[in-house]
Amino acid sequence: MATGRAHRPATRSRGIPEATVARLPLYLRALTALSERSVPTVSSEELAAAAGVNSAKLRKDFSYLGSYGTRGVGYDVEYLVYQISRELGLTQDWPVVIVGIGNLGAALANYGGFASRGFRVAALIDADPSMAGKPVAGIPVQHTDELEKIIQDDGVSIGVIATPAGAAQQVCDRLVAAGVTSILNFAPTVLNVPEGVDVRKVDLSIELQILAFHEQRKAGEEAAGDAGAVPPVAARKQQPSTDQGPDGDVPAVMPA
Amino acid sequence: MATGRAHRPATRSRGIPEATVARLPLYLRALTALSERSVPTVSSEELAAAAGVNSAKLRKDFSYLGSYGTRGVGYDVEYLVYQISRELGLTQDWPVVIVGIGNLGAALANYGGFASRGFRVAALIDADPSMAGKPVAGIPVQHTDELEKIIQDDGVSIGVIATPAGAAQQVCDRLVAAGVTSILNFAPTVLNVPEGVDVRKVDLSIELQILAFHEQRKAGEEAAGDAGAVPPVAARKQQPSTDQGPDGDVPAVMPA
Repeated sequence: MATGRAHRPATRSRGIPEATVARLPLYLRALTALSERSVPTVSSEELAAAAGVNSAKLRKDFSYLGSYGTRGVGYDVEYLVYQISRELGLTQDWPVVIVGIGNLGAALANYGGFASRGFRVAALIDADPSMAGKPVAGIPVQHTDELEKIIQDDGVSIGVIATPAGAAQQVCDRLVAAGVTSILNFAPTVLNVPEGVDVRKVDLSIELQILAFHEQRKAGEEAAGDAGAVPPVAARKQQPSTDQGPDGDVPAVMPA
Repeated sequence: MATGRAHRPATRSRGIPEATVARLPLYLRALTALSERSVPTVSSEELAAAAGVNSAKLRKDFSYLGSYGTRGVGYDVEYLVYQISRELGLTQDWPVVIVGIGNLGAALANYGGFASRGFRVAALIDADPSMAGKPVAGIPVQHTDELEKIIQDDGVSIGVIATPAGAAQQVCDRLVAAGVTSILNFAPTVLNVPEGVDVRKVDLSIELQILAFHEQRKAGEEAAGDAGAVPPVAARKQQPSTDQGPDGDVPAVMPA
């Protein structure tokens, strides 16, 4: 499939573990914040703390990129931003379609975090004919009938599904048949896709479950404190805070 | 702070690594799917594949729960559902408030995945007076002036912030002052909270970045295939699919 994008040798990306790939966006976000403050260099410890990752893991991750930093100086912020962006493919333009323009689809269309990372909302698609032509986030909604044409005309390879569960598999099948090979699924259902198509499924309740675990622990510590066993403040200080999670391995999204 | 919830001894939850906590919701989701299909037992390999986690890691994780399975039989599905739900605190009722009822807040209010995990949307709060009383997902929106009263009356400890970035810190400060100790932040900004308050920040673009990495790799393999170096189909088969990520350590959310 000719997509018109700049291709890089396949061998470059081989050998980077999936868990490292999943951490690269966390490093990138922390580095971008440093870059915006014009910080020229950063130590592995500082960057690890900012990204919520263990510093030994960070150094190991960066070794896959061939980036080792300079002893006593640290890592060059701008160069790392470039290196990670390139590794993730964010130096390219990625046209994305969002299918299902209810509240969630509209929220995603308005989400500022996509454009700043090279993701361009190429089209908004909805099955409701009364939505057609209506602008959302400045983009006129198009009817599902146009789906195949939009995908092909714009060389779209990434689709976001924000439809109700019942419509998601059919939309997925049409996206894949039209040439989409990566799907971000917000619909509460499991999608079946052929080999070669990547699906990531978002489950927003997973994060709440992790917060509930910590809430429960805090409540338990307070109960212990009330009973005089452990002073509540001391108990809180012992508790590892999720503000600085040990290694950032915190999935809200699982492979579908 | 007396919340009226059943407290469990603080020591129970100690010693479970943060990365294990983050995987428990993934196991729970896979187990719930098995339970719905009335599957009585599951092997560590099957469950690991369903949850997108390495099976050795799964066995290690379950050992923290004191759950070792039965050789040749596997794990009892119903008992594991109960055990993980209890460990995560999901057997309790968690009232949650959502602040900021734009498209995203409305989408979250309508999200079915919260209620099924013990999270009850106790209130929807918005700063726009014209929203007050308007029902969203069957719940009338309340004005921000009521925030403190709602939190205190309902014993809310978890707040979801879906406001624009500019309003998020102020909302966060008010939630914390009123007694909220866990915050799920959808606003594109970093929140400062006092010690003892957990914040998790959602960045929806992180998942797209991981998909872009794989897209780029697929494009590179196809380019190599086109040049006759590697047949595209064979290249695809060699590629580890994110459908079955090696260990599920895939963060869309990072500690804030």
